[in-house]
Amino acid sequence: MGLGKKFIGLLAIVLVVGCTQSDGQQEQQQKKDWALALHGGAGAISEDRPDSVKQAYFDDLDEALTIGEDILSNGGSAEDAVEKVINYMEDNPRFNAGKGAVFTHDGEHELDAAFMIGNTREAGAVTGVKTVKNPITLARKVMETSEHVMFATEGAERYADKVGVERVDQDYFYTESRYKALQRALEQEKEDDGKQSSLVPYEDKTALYADGEKFGTVGCVAVDKNGQIVAGTSTGGMTNKKFGRVGDVPIIGSGTYASDLVAVSMTGWGEKIMRAVSGHTVSAYMKYKPATLEEAGDYLLQDVLNPGEAGMIAVDKYGNIYMDMNTNGMFRGSSDSEGNREVAIWD
Amino acid sequence: MGLGKKFIGLLAIVLVVGCTQSDGQQEQQQKKDWALALHGGAGAISEDRPDSVKQAYFDDLDEALTIGEDILSNGGSAEDAVEKVINYMEDNPRFNAGKGAVFTHDGEHELDAAFMIGNTREAGAVTGVKTVKNPITLARKVMETSEHVMFATEGAERYADKVGVERVDQDYFYTESRYKALQRALEQEKEDDGKQSSLVPYEDKTALYADGEKFGTVGCVAVDKNGQIVAGTSTGGMTNKKFGRVGDVPIIGSGTYASDLVAVSMTGWGEKIMRAVSGHTVSAYMKYKPATLEEAGDYLLQDVLNPGEAGMIAVDKYGNIYMDMNTNGMFRGSSDSEGNREVAIWD
Repeated sequence: MGLGKKFIGLLAIVLVVGCTQSDGQQEQQQKKDWALALHGGAGAISEDRPDSVKQAYFDDLDEALTIGEDILSNGGSAEDAVEKVINYMEDNPRFNAGKGAVFTHDGEHELDAAFMIGNTREAGAVTGVKTVKNPITLARKVMETSEHVMFATEGAERYADKVGVERVDQDYFYTESRYKALQRALEQEKEDDGKQSSLVPYEDKTALYADGEKFGTVGCVAVDKNGQIVAGTSTGGMTNKKFGRVGDVPIIGSGTYASDLVAVSMTGWGEKIMRAVSGHTVSAYMKYKPATLEEAGDYLLQDVLNPGEAGMIAVDKYGNIYMDMNTNGMFRGSSDSEGNREVAIWD
Repeated sequence: MGLGKKFIGLLAIVLVVGCTQSDGQQEQQQKKDWALALHGGAGAISEDRPDSVKQAYFDDLDEALTIGEDILSNGGSAEDAVEKVINYMEDNPRFNAGKGAVFTHDGEHELDAAFMIGNTREAGAVTGVKTVKNPITLARKVMETSEHVMFATEGAERYADKVGVERVDQDYFYTESRYKALQRALEQEKEDDGKQSSLVPYEDKTALYADGEKFGTVGCVAVDKNGQIVAGTSTGGMTNKKFGRVGDVPIIGSGTYASDLVAVSMTGWGEKIMRAVSGHTVSAYMKYKPATLEEAGDYLLQDVLNPGEAGMIAVDKYGNIYMDMNTNGMFRGSSDSEGNREVAIWD
């Protein structure tokens, strides 16, 4: 072997070591006992609201966070933490999920949810349910008991009956503020001179974000002491959405995704999040690049999605937490076993 | 700067060059004028059928391929090629899509389809439609005309009326062989001693693959002379599926996906394909690793999915074609502007 060949051989070794170095660095991290993050929607959130309204949101986020902390710090599972945190936000009319869900174009409520355990890649999802009080609970039940991953509309409601998940009348979901939001959206549509809203290209639709009231989703991600990594998301969709529209939330890999590396829950403009397969993009970037959670989250929000489109929460298998958005705000909170705790709305 | 620092600097340069080398190699490829691949389902396909039946499948695959070749070789678009090839297979009762779709548990037909252009990330999808003659045409219309990406059940059918996509009676989809397949599945379920089929874990369900008649999907991927990369998939789902089940086909990123690098259409066990976010896995592996289409396809079928679960067709932006499966067979065909042409069923 000549000197040239030896040099090439040395380089090859260096290249292999160099290319996998980042992965090796990740492996050296200490895993936190548990970690948790939640969101209550992202968008253009006005800072001009009365202090009492702002405080109410902070209090609710704090209460949701406490529910998850109590479960995880007492050795409970990430599945339970994610479900119970989301149940609280579904039952709270301030968030667009469960009670307080926005109205569709037809004046109804159509709810979506998904639940996924990263370690086993088990998943459950429901879309277009009209009478299920807590869609995230149904999504978890689908995951645990069905051979199928996803059910739509009446099929999902039939499944709820089969597995004993509570159903309610449509009236249960009514809130005056969401009803008024629909009326404003319908008037706006009329003012648009009869243009068919659904034929307007995406790019002309940014006005939808003006008041941040059309969108909204709740989500939670957690890793527990046994290393289970779980993601869940639940939503009432978007105000004035057309009948039967499916957004990103129940799409495994888009609004909700968990792998053996990371759990992700998205919020924002569903169609943009779907077309980017956002949740899976974060996991794949971490795995194949390889990259840290922070690098992968920034890549998604800055390089893949456009400003104004989305917010994201995630935890990786070490308990590292990521919460960021390319909108001006996201209702959010996070906590871990090392005492780091945050509740925030704006940047 | 000491000699040691210089060496480290040199190494850093070498590392950067080395790690991106594979990407660089891809860039040197010549793009073919056009390329096309299609499938008509994968699974455990018996080789014991009469020669006349086998020949009929080969003839149909050949005819479908010719439709796409005629469009692309005359300068037509990948969108048109994908839609028209799939229309042919939807209209052909031998394939499980459109006419010839399998029966649900309730004796109905529920069809799913998705369409995506990789270059622009535009996408359209429909799930659970019962009366749309060509679901792939509706999926393309959703992509082209709606602010939404996906519609479910009645909402999708309403949208079909709005954009003038043909609807038919459920009777249109009837075929005797599919009806008999449902009867066999229902009898099998009864023999299973009243066990609730949907509560049996995945792992005990491999028997479903015994005769290859329960599953099946049609799909097509193409790149045209302008470099548009398009994927489409259409299916009647699985025999005896429960009402409202959504499989992988209409899930952008799972059964159907296209990026600026590659277009993918999957077929097989929908739930497994969904939980792996299969289509997007191929694209992400190519992009972030980086890897060739062949490496990414093999990674998905061999390392991510398990034997017996799926088949996949894909074309990358250069016109490279990938068709493979981890089942014993997949109805498939491919063709490109350089005269390479293949029609096959088994290994």
